[in-house]
Amino acid sequence: MQEKLNFENDYCEGAHPAILEALAATNMEQTMGYGSDPYTASARQKIAKACGCDANGVWLLVGGTQANATVIDSLLQGYEGVVCATTGHIAVHEAGAVEAFGHKVLTLPASQGKLLPDVLLAYLREHFADENREHMVWPGMVYLSHPTEYGTLYTAEEMKELYEICRTYEIPLYVDGARLGYALACPQSDIDLPFLAKYTDAFSIGGTKVGALFGEAVVFTKKTPPHFLTTVKRHGALLAKGRLLGIQFDTLFTDGLYLQCGRHAIDMARLLKEGFAKRGMEFFLDSPTNQQFLVLERAFMEALQEKAAFSFWEKVDERRTAVRFCTSWATKEENIRKLFEMIDGLVL
Amino acid sequence: MQEKLNFENDYCEGAHPAILEALAATNMEQTMGYGSDPYTASARQKIAKACGCDANGVWLLVGGTQANATVIDSLLQGYEGVVCATTGHIAVHEAGAVEAFGHKVLTLPASQGKLLPDVLLAYLREHFADENREHMVWPGMVYLSHPTEYGTLYTAEEMKELYEICRTYEIPLYVDGARLGYALACPQSDIDLPFLAKYTDAFSIGGTKVGALFGEAVVFTKKTPPHFLTTVKRHGALLAKGRLLGIQFDTLFTDGLYLQCGRHAIDMARLLKEGFAKRGMEFFLDSPTNQQFLVLERAFMEALQEKAAFSFWEKVDERRTAVRFCTSWATKEENIRKLFEMIDGLVL
Amino acid sequence: MQEKLNFENDYCEGAHPAILEALAATNMEQTMGYGSDPYTASARQKIAKACGCDANGVWLLVGGTQANATVIDSLLQGYEGVVCATTGHIAVHEAGAVEAFGHKVLTLPASQGKLLPDVLLAYLREHFADENREHMVWPGMVYLSHPTEYGTLYTAEEMKELYEICRTYEIPLYVDGARLGYALACPQSDIDLPFLAKYTDAFSIGGTKVGALFGEAVVFTKKTPPHFLTTVKRHGALLAKGRLLGIQFDTLFTDGLYLQCGRHAIDMARLLKEGFAKRGMEFFLDSPTNQQFLVLERAFMEALQEKAAFSFWEKVDERRTAVRFCTSWATKEENIRKLFEMIDGLVL
Amino acid sequence: MQEKLNFENDYCEGAHPAILEALAATNMEQTMGYGSDPYTASARQKIAKACGCDANGVWLLVGGTQANATVIDSLLQGYEGVVCATTGHIAVHEAGAVEAFGHKVLTLPASQGKLLPDVLLAYLREHFADENREHMVWPGMVYLSHPTEYGTLYTAEEMKELYEICRTYEIPLYVDGARLGYALACPQSDIDLPFLAKYTDAFSIGGTKVGALFGEAVVFTKKTPPHFLTTVKRHGALLAKGRLLGIQFDTLFTDGLYLQCGRHAIDMARLLKEGFAKRGMEFFLDSPTNQQFLVLERAFMEALQEKAAFSFWEKVDERRTAVRFCTSWATKEENIRKLFEMIDGLVL
Repeated sequence: MQEKLNFENDYCEGAHPAILEALAATNMEQTMGYGSDPYTASARQKIAKACGCDANGVWLLVGGTQANATVIDSLLQGYEGVVCATTGHIAVHEAGAVEAFGHKVLTLPASQGKLLPDVLLAYLREHFADENREHMVWPGMVYLSHPTEYGTLYTAEEMKELYEICRTYEIPLYVDGARLGYALACPQSDIDLPFLAKYTDAFSIGGTKVGALFGEAVVFTKKTPPHFLTTVKRHGALLAKGRLLGIQFDTLFTDGLYLQCGRHAIDMARLLKEGFAKRGMEFFLDSPTNQQFLVLERAFMEALQEKAAFSFWEKVDERRTAVRFCTSWATKEENIRKLFEMIDGLVL
Repeated sequence: MQEKLNFENDYCEGAHPAILEALAATNMEQTMGYGSDPYTASARQKIAKACGCDANGVWLLVGGTQANATVIDSLLQGYEGVVCATTGHIAVHEAGAVEAFGHKVLTLPASQGKLLPDVLLAYLREHFADENREHMVWPGMVYLSHPTEYGTLYTAEEMKELYEICRTYEIPLYVDGARLGYALACPQSDIDLPFLAKYTDAFSIGGTKVGALFGEAVVFTKKTPPHFLTTVKRHGALLAKGRLLGIQFDTLFTDGLYLQCGRHAIDMARLLKEGFAKRGMEFFLDSPTNQQFLVLERAFMEALQEKAAFSFWEKVDERRTAVRFCTSWATKEENIRKLFEMIDGLVL
Repeated sequence: MQEKLNFENDYCEGAHPAILEALAATNMEQTMGYGSDPYTASARQKIAKACGCDANGVWLLVGGTQANATVIDSLLQGYEGVVCATTGHIAVHEAGAVEAFGHKVLTLPASQGKLLPDVLLAYLREHFADENREHMVWPGMVYLSHPTEYGTLYTAEEMKELYEICRTYEIPLYVDGARLGYALACPQSDIDLPFLAKYTDAFSIGGTKVGALFGEAVVFTKKTPPHFLTTVKRHGALLAKGRLLGIQFDTLFTDGLYLQCGRHAIDMARLLKEGFAKRGMEFFLDSPTNQQFLVLERAFMEALQEKAAFSFWEKVDERRTAVRFCTSWATKEENIRKLFEMIDGLVL
Repeated sequence: MQEKLNFENDYCEGAHPAILEALAATNMEQTMGYGSDPYTASARQKIAKACGCDANGVWLLVGGTQANATVIDSLLQGYEGVVCATTGHIAVHEAGAVEAFGHKVLTLPASQGKLLPDVLLAYLREHFADENREHMVWPGMVYLSHPTEYGTLYTAEEMKELYEICRTYEIPLYVDGARLGYALACPQSDIDLPFLAKYTDAFSIGGTKVGALFGEAVVFTKKTPPHFLTTVKRHGALLAKGRLLGIQFDTLFTDGLYLQCGRHAIDMARLLKEGFAKRGMEFFLDSPTNQQFLVLERAFMEALQEKAAFSFWEKVDERRTAVRFCTSWATKEENIRKLFEMIDGLVL
């Protein structure tokens, strides 16, 4: 139905065909509800194995905001808030879902979407030295997104350092991996699932943007908060037909499909990047993942928008705008070629 | 994978094949996210048409607890609670999802799962006459489930009366239709969609239990609360690939599939009921819908449980237990025959 | 300014004169804020000594609803609710203050205001045996009021039993002592402060109704929830001039003033009770404390209301009404005499 | 008990003697509870008259955080947050009391504690132009403090402009006047109570820091949110003996006592300021109110701290620290003389 080339986001198609096939193949089987089915059990096992952790720590939720709000709520006491970069998804684009459960999002300056270790450490030192700290929200956990909302990645060194700071202050570290597949598949990245399992207390593995119809796996790497299923239900996040999540993640974690989805998007993003660079187009920032950010002249942007869909990111100045192009597991190489033909055809 | 006959609930299979086909057929189309796609638009139109109301009032959410919590939160002010029968799903089996958003569930005595008009009226009269009412949670809306958790149905007369009481006190009436298809398809029922649209302020049309993989349509019949999309997002209830809901409800509301799903379950329930009655088995209560409740002797129950799955409902006395058998859009007539063969074969 | 005799409640005067004197005597001293002053320290010590527990567990809050909501919130996890009799103050007359912080009040049938041990035990057994318990709010603590809202008292035996049930299920027991002084002073009562410290996890000692201008002491008998001061602040319950609470409780817990206030009210209540009984008036229930409940004929009630203030309690039938008469630390014996003169003078 | 000169804050003494006298004079009168007494009625009338607004819009609460959280919660819908300067009290020092009720505090850059009109306007324009605004918390009201946390004041021009921006976007403007008396008494200030009543939707008049034992009057200038008393109760903020607030504000608003308290503090602050200036001490910022901020060398600061109490504000650099000296209605001129003698005697 959509005519334009679409690079707007990484959730504009349905699911990897293997997932639809698995859903069809199991459709009339009768299973228990709420995640007590064998497919969910199998998916939890496979994810746990890939991470090197316990299957009891693996949970399957429907959406990203939902997963963040549920995990964060389960890890915080009432008097605690979640520390996060000003650009963090929970701070900006989740409509106050964290606050809805009573918790403040404590924002710290971001560097291209990243919360750097020294920024975190300085804040924690200052908080615990502040004479008025008992009148303030306590930092109860740290939230990172990896990749960040700007497509950037933490290095293993940085994440390890962040985790060690959290250990020192005895607060959990949670990593929002809504696009985790696109980080794991990145040649530049030295962070894999076992690393995350070791250097975080919880993280999510996004399915929605990486091959699934929907679904986010949450991994509690050391211990699951008590009665987490009830917390999930209380958040309206417990799917009756839990097997839908089980079947999808079971498929994604069979024969490396999840990474394969990730790799395709990264390959396509590299083509984009090379094409942009070759044409001397200005990058807004240097992203190694499936989100590519350009600075476009207003007139050029508007001309291109008539033929291809991409996202407005922010106004750079009166004349120029930052925009985002996304690839995904579903991006067709042919469409990238077409995009560049359009760009080359634009005479302004 | 499941060997036993399964009458445990109405969500143990996947989806009606037409839904899987529609998902497959549209899988690689590119659409906008968050419900801005053409399938969602079409589904909203079809539902609105079936109800005789405005398509802007129709919203598609993922799950039942989620839909209830989101709608209730959107209709209440902070100082208000939701009035409901003691047996209401939100009062018992939603893990405090309503309270999580700060609202009390104000429970009134139920009659076989129903909140009767005179019970509601007496409560409201008493509340508004109470000198201490300013120290109490205000009744801000009324919640009914139709069918109820006991499979029973409101009559058109009762629902109209409940609605008129709500009008008198200027509080909205919301009907949880998680199993609405099984009420609409019931020959005894004189309530249809246009009736609900007229005599409620909001109601839900359950998909999860009536043919869909998942999904609950919410219909605001008179006006939608402002910024309802943001409320949905804040509840972690906004699906990125909103089209998944659109495609499902578009399919269910094409060529009467939703009612057809409902009718099949009711037909199968009638076979169950007749079979139970013929064998002189004791009914716990008289349900006209897809949930049938029996009182079984403990020994008989345990013998039967080895061969067929059904739900424990409540202990009647030391010797007897109430149990529930569910049919659904997916129940096979053959399995009902097998169930009765098992029952007849049980010599105790 | 008030002309009528007033038996309406136990908070219609200011404070015991000793308290006003103490406030005046210390008025221009300069102290630290938020409870870090020497008067608060002294009050905490004295209360701790009277209870036989640690002064760090003693906290001073302003009001009753505030104290309940703050303590309950500090003791519960998100997925937990507070168990309470249907007549409990938190369930009825606190405007949803517990729910405002996300917690359900789980109500059980009351016996003259009391939650009896076998009722609690049966509920907990049922909950933990329920196959759907993960979909339900977990019982996270138990709330009692002592005296109850009906003026009745728990026996030491009952409270011990309730506490032991709580121990078995590992959930804390909290006693709302908004009128605790009127229980402690009751000759029939076998519960004193050290008993409460032993057989509860937390309880409050009401000042507002027992001699103070305002103030409720909260005693955590075994351990204080972490960062409780921050929880108090988050509830808007931290008084800048914390010394006002310190000075009041320091005075009340010096030379037995708190118990003396209690005893006076109980003496006055006995006079009331004897006078009512002598005149053959019908009691609504038998209360040993400062709240006395009568059943009055409508006409008699209305005639008496013109001369004396008392509280409507509930409609008994078309002809008769239950009403409440309260005494307090401030009740004048002379007014009781006058009340009976009025009653005797009423010819109907 | 405190030996050191104390300039630490403006709540280290009790109350103006006239208030203690009024409390003593009325102590044994019997009045209705929860603010239904004649003193509260009189106080509401006097405040309304001073502001030129309706007495029904005037409410008396106990504390500052409590008043802020209650007013903000009453003015916001669930999907809305409160806009405020990063330095706003609600954003920093109220332990997440606003978030506890589900609302985000949306912070904007501050200029010496002030939220400037152009900063607000730019934010609102950007928000309402943002394509993702439905995924974000809506700005539902604006919070200012006057005086600010830095002792600075809005000009009438600025406040009018802020109010007009709020009108344009149809969101209420609320002014936290915890120290309002110290703004009103300031010769430089061109904002008085009628001005506030005209150019805000709600504001508070702090008593705790300006002569009362405790108490904050809240004025809804145009309309009171429905069932505000219930909201107050739900926040645990309804005082049983409401008359304590009534008597205090009645006294403060009789014969100009409130302004007189304010003026004394400002006079004392001027003496401080002149003394500091004469000695060439460095000001951290130029405050016209009762909070004076200096930058002190570390060694000098530590020497002075042994003799006088004042507040740490923030570290300026390795060598220097910003500190705060407060005056109040209770500050003795003699103590200011003593302070300067100490300063002059410090040879470093």
